[in-house]
Amino acid sequence: MEACEIWQDMERIRAEAPLVHNITNFVVMNTTANALLAMGASPVMAHAVEEVEEMVSMARALVINVGTLSSPWIEAMRKAAREARRRAIPIVLDPVGCGATRFRTTTVQTLMRETPPTIVRGNASEIMALVDAGQSTRGVDSAMASGEALAAAQALSRSCHCVVSVSGATDLIVADDSIARVRNGHPMMPRITGLGCTATALTGAFAAVNPSPFRAAVHAMALMGIAGEIAAERSPGPGSFQVNFLDALHLIQASDIERRLKLEAA
Amino acid sequence: MEACEIWQDMERIRAEAPLVHNITNFVVMNTTANALLAMGASPVMAHAVEEVEEMVSMARALVINVGTLSSPWIEAMRKAAREARRRAIPIVLDPVGCGATRFRTTTVQTLMRETPPTIVRGNASEIMALVDAGQSTRGVDSAMASGEALAAAQALSRSCHCVVSVSGATDLIVADDSIARVRNGHPMMPRITGLGCTATALTGAFAAVNPSPFRAAVHAMALMGIAGEIAAERSPGPGSFQVNFLDALHLIQASDIERRLKLEAA
Amino acid sequence: MEACEIWQDMERIRAEAPLVHNITNFVVMNTTANALLAMGASPVMAHAVEEVEEMVSMARALVINVGTLSSPWIEAMRKAAREARRRAIPIVLDPVGCGATRFRTTTVQTLMRETPPTIVRGNASEIMALVDAGQSTRGVDSAMASGEALAAAQALSRSCHCVVSVSGATDLIVADDSIARVRNGHPMMPRITGLGCTATALTGAFAAVNPSPFRAAVHAMALMGIAGEIAAERSPGPGSFQVNFLDALHLIQASDIERRLKLEAA
Repeated sequence: MEACEIWQDMERIRAEAPLVHNITNFVVMNTTANALLAMGASPVMAHAVEEVEEMVSMARALVINVGTLSSPWIEAMRKAAREARRRAIPIVLDPVGCGATRFRTTTVQTLMRETPPTIVRGNASEIMALVDAGQSTRGVDSAMASGEALAAAQALSRSCHCVVSVSGATDLIVADDSIARVRNGHPMMPRITGLGCTATALTGAFAAVNPSPFRAAVHAMALMGIAGEIAAERSPGPGSFQVNFLDALHLIQASDIERRLKLEAA
Repeated sequence: MEACEIWQDMERIRAEAPLVHNITNFVVMNTTANALLAMGASPVMAHAVEEVEEMVSMARALVINVGTLSSPWIEAMRKAAREARRRAIPIVLDPVGCGATRFRTTTVQTLMRETPPTIVRGNASEIMALVDAGQSTRGVDSAMASGEALAAAQALSRSCHCVVSVSGATDLIVADDSIARVRNGHPMMPRITGLGCTATALTGAFAAVNPSPFRAAVHAMALMGIAGEIAAERSPGPGSFQVNFLDALHLIQASDIERRLKLEAA
Repeated sequence: MEACEIWQDMERIRAEAPLVHNITNFVVMNTTANALLAMGASPVMAHAVEEVEEMVSMARALVINVGTLSSPWIEAMRKAAREARRRAIPIVLDPVGCGATRFRTTTVQTLMRETPPTIVRGNASEIMALVDAGQSTRGVDSAMASGEALAAAQALSRSCHCVVSVSGATDLIVADDSIARVRNGHPMMPRITGLGCTATALTGAFAAVNPSPFRAAVHAMALMGIAGEIAAERSPGPGSFQVNFLDALHLIQASDIERRLKLEAA
């Protein structure tokens, strides 16, 4: 049944090509734009304070990613997020590297307080850093025990009234009393830069068509994991993986999702 | 005959490796640099106000692309364009997303008034927005009826005394009383980010070696379309398309152009 | 014996996944991050003045690359380099385009004077420009006679007390009285943007695990050249080359290095 719902969302995305406004980092702009296009959405990247409000007003989702943050971008993120909230456009926030530096942690905390996002999508250490500002992460790809990750995701979800989506070997998606676990994916995926950011961008595309942010987040992580499995089967290394991953997003069928989906919801 | 002229330009590009100075957007910097290299040109990316005049003075074409515009970049674009005009270096302008926001439309209109480009290369809705500032586009990939596109391209060409190159299922290239239509290409191409920007960059490479901006624009769109067809035949999806497109730019032969070219000139 | 030492470094990199902090250019951020990941290192990209000191303090190497330089980035480079020196973290500097504009040459000279790097990695014309500020390069991919390159590298190494690594058909690595020549690589490599920048990033990864900057620089150029040869054998053009190069960095075996290494040390 869930596989069917994921497929319905994908068919809507392909039919409607929702505009997803990304204010994201320099490393992944190209790859996330291509991932959104490959799955059928319409990406736009724009970060000037002069235009973000106008741009987001045309979009059906706003994705904010702090991966290569600097001061001039923060004001653009704030303005875009305010306008998105005013228009009830879903906001997906990726706290890349939170906990690694105070600048990132503080910026994301400010964004979350001023303009609470609909969905936060990060890895376990980033989510933990947002709950307990005393923690520190090691760079942008740290891991931690999954029990801690769940507790942190639940605490963050409660305090910010948002869906929290934590990527890892098992992805955790948490909202209110709901928990979903997605066990799709492949160990090669952390060897490619920006796949977490791609997950965030795809979450934006699902949030554009699915009124439930929780389901949107679950569906995005399932698609990421399944496309990653398909790609990894054909890829001797991380170079070919990237090529096959974009192809998989484009070629994926309902039957792929049905056969491969490893989702537990509670 | 036209196929032969395209090939002659390509041989000049490969022999002379003209330096093409790009002030372009973050999304496509890597892919357009690689496309220019694959076809034999020498790309350089530089946007600091402190160096753009010196950099453009060494170049044989200047490509300006407003895809991820912000204020500090506008001054660099203006300075580079003034120096290019002073030295009679051809300027190719890509008005990415014009019509989507006032900031982009106004910036491009200012650039066109202060430093009229040699060639403007955009999609139909962007060109339309430059003619009628009252229009609005939907993001950066909109389309419109081809009759309107032609009228807009002709109006813009007349008012700015430049060549106007409009990409679409059929590409239109307009200058004075000349019209060319290129019917090459493949439906998968809009599913890859930045291929329009690549067309603009390649137009710069052709403008570096061909004294006729009209022919340079036609040749660039023909090469884009033909390389796209070759790539698409080998590519199950947009990931492999990108790989095969760069390979095709590198491997393309005179016979490929001769056999595939679908060009109507009037 | 050298092949064995290269492999030992690679095993350490894969085992320890050293964090390499990159302040680099927009064109290559994605590709250098992916190259570092493919070989087993952990890249982080961060350029805000507010966070570079904190970020570099967690890193085991700092890579500075001026390829798309602008003023706000210079202060971040200076701060990060000062902190790296204070903590004895190796600094690898890539003077992209030095000699092409006074802005780049002056900036790199200032960085070298204030915070002498451990290793400078550039092409021959860039290294020459740093020795003789009167020289000018043509863009970012110029070449020159190898005798001149050696003299320039030695002069720069003496004056800045650093290792100088000069990429070219034959790579030269110079320090004090030591000279190494790496004759690996493939003619297709200059047809892909940012492979020089990738060499610089990989040099950072080797410097993170090898206490000898000279050996780190040699090992990085050897790995670049060998992975490039493996990739080129499977690649009809520069698109597939990029894919196969990342795969090769991931898949390379001790036996590949042993069989292919063309290293002369004096």
